[in-house]
Amino acid sequence: MPPNTASAFVPGHVTIFFSPTWRSEPERSGSVGAGITLSDGVTVDVESATETRITVNGSVLDIEPVQGVLDSIGRSAQITAATPLPVGAGFGVSGALALGTALAANHVFGLNRSENELITLAHTAEVEAGTGLGDVMAQARGGIPIRLQPGAPHHGMLDGIPAVATIEYLSFGGLDTPDILAAEQETLEAAGDAAQEQLLADPSITTLFDTGWQFARDTELVTPEVDEVVAAVRSNGGLASMAMLGRTVIGLGSALSDAGFEPSSCQTHPPGATLR
Amino acid sequence: MPPNTASAFVPGHVTIFFSPTWRSEPERSGSVGAGITLSDGVTVDVESATETRITVNGSVLDIEPVQGVLDSIGRSAQITAATPLPVGAGFGVSGALALGTALAANHVFGLNRSENELITLAHTAEVEAGTGLGDVMAQARGGIPIRLQPGAPHHGMLDGIPAVATIEYLSFGGLDTPDILAAEQETLEAAGDAAQEQLLADPSITTLFDTGWQFARDTELVTPEVDEVVAAVRSNGGLASMAMLGRTVIGLGSALSDAGFEPSSCQTHPPGATLR
Repeated sequence: MPPNTASAFVPGHVTIFFSPTWRSEPERSGSVGAGITLSDGVTVDVESATETRITVNGSVLDIEPVQGVLDSIGRSAQITAATPLPVGAGFGVSGALALGTALAANHVFGLNRSENELITLAHTAEVEAGTGLGDVMAQARGGIPIRLQPGAPHHGMLDGIPAVATIEYLSFGGLDTPDILAAEQETLEAAGDAAQEQLLADPSITTLFDTGWQFARDTELVTPEVDEVVAAVRSNGGLASMAMLGRTVIGLGSALSDAGFEPSSCQTHPPGATLR
Repeated sequence: MPPNTASAFVPGHVTIFFSPTWRSEPERSGSVGAGITLSDGVTVDVESATETRITVNGSVLDIEPVQGVLDSIGRSAQITAATPLPVGAGFGVSGALALGTALAANHVFGLNRSENELITLAHTAEVEAGTGLGDVMAQARGGIPIRLQPGAPHHGMLDGIPAVATIEYLSFGGLDTPDILAAEQETLEAAGDAAQEQLLADPSITTLFDTGWQFARDTELVTPEVDEVVAAVRSNGGLASMAMLGRTVIGLGSALSDAGFEPSSCQTHPPGATLR
């Protein structure tokens, strides 16, 4: 008999650059690009319930991709999530909630799905909600994922940068993801494809930060406070870039604190999302 | 400048059932099947050296796939490995050595390869040495991998069973891998494909153990001491099967100790191989 509750942990994910692909089938939609998964992530507890209620860090929230996952499996549940990450600031929290819900719900409701099927559920819900394109695939994999082909498992294809590192971050809040993803498609594609080509020629974490910062400037997504922090870090000899999509700076090693800021600190996270 | 030494950790991997595919290109050769990655694994230290020397738990050994990886990149190195796992008994130690060498050598020699490229190097070396077909792909992924399509990244395709568990093991020594992989191709294919079909219909860890034990008996690979232990565990209500390819029993949770044996114990290992 399935247990009444289950819990999953999903790493945070910061996209450093991307090129979006929209297709009529959500499982073929997604993005090419690269990012970093973080040991700061989201713990998602799922409990069978007669009515769905989603609580994040104690606040009841309406998270569309989580509702999408539950609708797909035809169940209602109490979802209780905890995270040290700011919500809506480019850390993939909505993707983490969707994927964590899928993984834990599979256990609670005895759904007998494979990991690829659960990742597909969460990816589809994110794409349909317009809240993300690549986070779920990256979060399922862990490490420092390069998204070679867009889409859910069996469509998308991933590679990775073979490195582990300390990562610092400093957030000033959110950008409006759906609006940005819908706009500037051509600009994003051109800058994202150029960054991808450079990274694949040298799949290292320093090149990731350099191509990412070029991408952020080429796409004019940089906000003034992010620009100021990254400039200070870079003039101090450190590596930093912007989280896509949030008013968030992410830095390599102790780059942000070395430049006098007071960031949060965590590690790259080799495992992907898992049941706990 | 690259560092002079680097270290990688690669989980152990026990194949529970498989169906081999041999093609003229090693990167398209491999196996379909399923197994379990283990938190007991292999730590591989690589140091640049004028002559290659491979030491495992203090003994100098000639490990052909490790030599193959070094030949591919045209380097020589001191390889120092440590593992609690028995060598040559079905725990994927040769695959772990090849993959750990590739990951750490990339760092030491500044090769700038991506993770997929390094996994391909190790997979190819294993296939060419005849020491394994699916371990490297499984060890790169972590978790409880299902190998849907054979081969290295960009050819092979993986799924997984969404579970974490305690795993016990008890080994009586090795079988001769190259001989077995070359023999009985039709029997292995028929039994492996049947097991795969059953597992994909219910991708759970209990079904993995049940289909695996059926596979072991159908292929007549079971040795007397393995048969005796698995029978005792199963009559005690526990789940156990045989590691392919070794005279090794692997059990779920505390199945082996509950039945009165004195096994080693570890956990499934969600992360794949990583630099340390």
